[in-house]
Amino acid sequence: ELVAALRERFTDGPLAGRRVLITAGPTREPVDPVRFVGNRSSGRMGYAVAAAAAAAGARVCLVSGPVALPSPPGVERVAVETALEMHAAVMERVAQAEVFISTAAVADYRVAEPALEKIKKRADILELRLVRNPDILAEVAARPDAPFTVGFAAETGDLERHARAKLEAKGLDMIAANDVSAGRGFDAEENALEVLWPGGGTSLGRQPKTALARALVALVARRMEAAGRNPGPA
Amino acid sequence: ELVAALRERFTDGPLAGRRVLITAGPTREPVDPVRFVGNRSSGRMGYAVAAAAAAAGARVCLVSGPVALPSPPGVERVAVETALEMHAAVMERVAQAEVFISTAAVADYRVAEPALEKIKKRADILELRLVRNPDILAEVAARPDAPFTVGFAAETGDLERHARAKLEAKGLDMIAANDVSAGRGFDAEENALEVLWPGGGTSLGRQPKTALARALVALVARRMEAAGRNPGPA
Repeated sequence: ELVAALRERFTDGPLAGRRVLITAGPTREPVDPVRFVGNRSSGRMGYAVAAAAAAAGARVCLVSGPVALPSPPGVERVAVETALEMHAAVMERVAQAEVFISTAAVADYRVAEPALEKIKKRADILELRLVRNPDILAEVAARPDAPFTVGFAAETGDLERHARAKLEAKGLDMIAANDVSAGRGFDAEENALEVLWPGGGTSLGRQPKTALARALVALVARRMEAAGRNPGPA
Repeated sequence: ELVAALRERFTDGPLAGRRVLITAGPTREPVDPVRFVGNRSSGRMGYAVAAAAAAAGARVCLVSGPVALPSPPGVERVAVETALEMHAAVMERVAQAEVFISTAAVADYRVAEPALEKIKKRADILELRLVRNPDILAEVAARPDAPFTVGFAAETGDLERHARAKLEAKGLDMIAANDVSAGRGFDAEENALEVLWPGGGTSLGRQPKTALARALVALVARRMEAAGRNPGPA
């Protein structure tokens, strides 16, 4: 309490005292006790955003899938594995958040009926039936008391059109899109982002993810102000 | 050449001068450019075995799927991603190996037709059709000039029966089985192994993977000798 109060009092970054909820990393959807459907997210971008938001004065909670990264200093980390676990962890905390930044590569599908024992390789062909996971980002953006909601979009072609469509379909306040053709973006130290919002946008050129994260956090603070979502210090 | 010659001359470990080929880690089978079917192998056991074999005087080549581990000192590492890549890397090198230790959790199945662009989440249900990957371990063991071949078996029940069946079906010289019920074994620092060979076996009790790896390597050297596969220094 005291530490939090002192931090709010003495911090004057662009997100001073703001509660920021961030998701990061991949989710893993079990096929059986040893196999899973995963994705190439390293979590680096999300961890860099969490570190940048904390450095900008925010109180950051990071809901993270399995990654090989240390928690950024001053950030509360909640470890999850599946999309359903990430959904639950976010929904528990979103009412308290003023900003929600979804960098996680949440699996769109989970295996309908994961096997309880390791599947033996008897058959020549294995058919996996996958069903849709909840769309955490859209659900957060659709809340009546939605925080300032920022999505990420990893695309393999027609970047801006796909990202703009997602921004509008989900009713986001901002979306940051990157090109993952041929593995770009994932598991790399550098990245570039097209950042879009209703009626505008900007490009953040190729640079280390730490620098990119600081630029994005500064942009979030400016857009919140422009949208009247930043009525003075909290 | 000189370094290798000197190393052989001055090393007197139980695998002095032996060429040991080891596979480790998971493989990743692409669903599309960002999604894959993977498994929970951390690679720790295989990396520990590689380090122990090198410490026992062997010349070690480690064919490794994607893991977050540094290469053990003195070990040549070949990085692969899919089961087909691991198969190719092993087959290129196996003729030179006197020992083959398969610790990798090679995917039994790969996606029949990976998508070239990221799959959009249009449908409520996604059917993935998986086809069998080659069985690297069985193929190595079946070679006329097969090295001393050691398999690993991760099982979720009836450990010894499943492992003994695998030993016999694949014609292995040795198999090391561990229980992965409830995630045990994977991603852990400790492990326990049931080690079986034709006509015998022993238990290596729960201990750090590094100690377990040294015990296993010593056992490999003894069994090679017992099987007449160790006719004096190479």
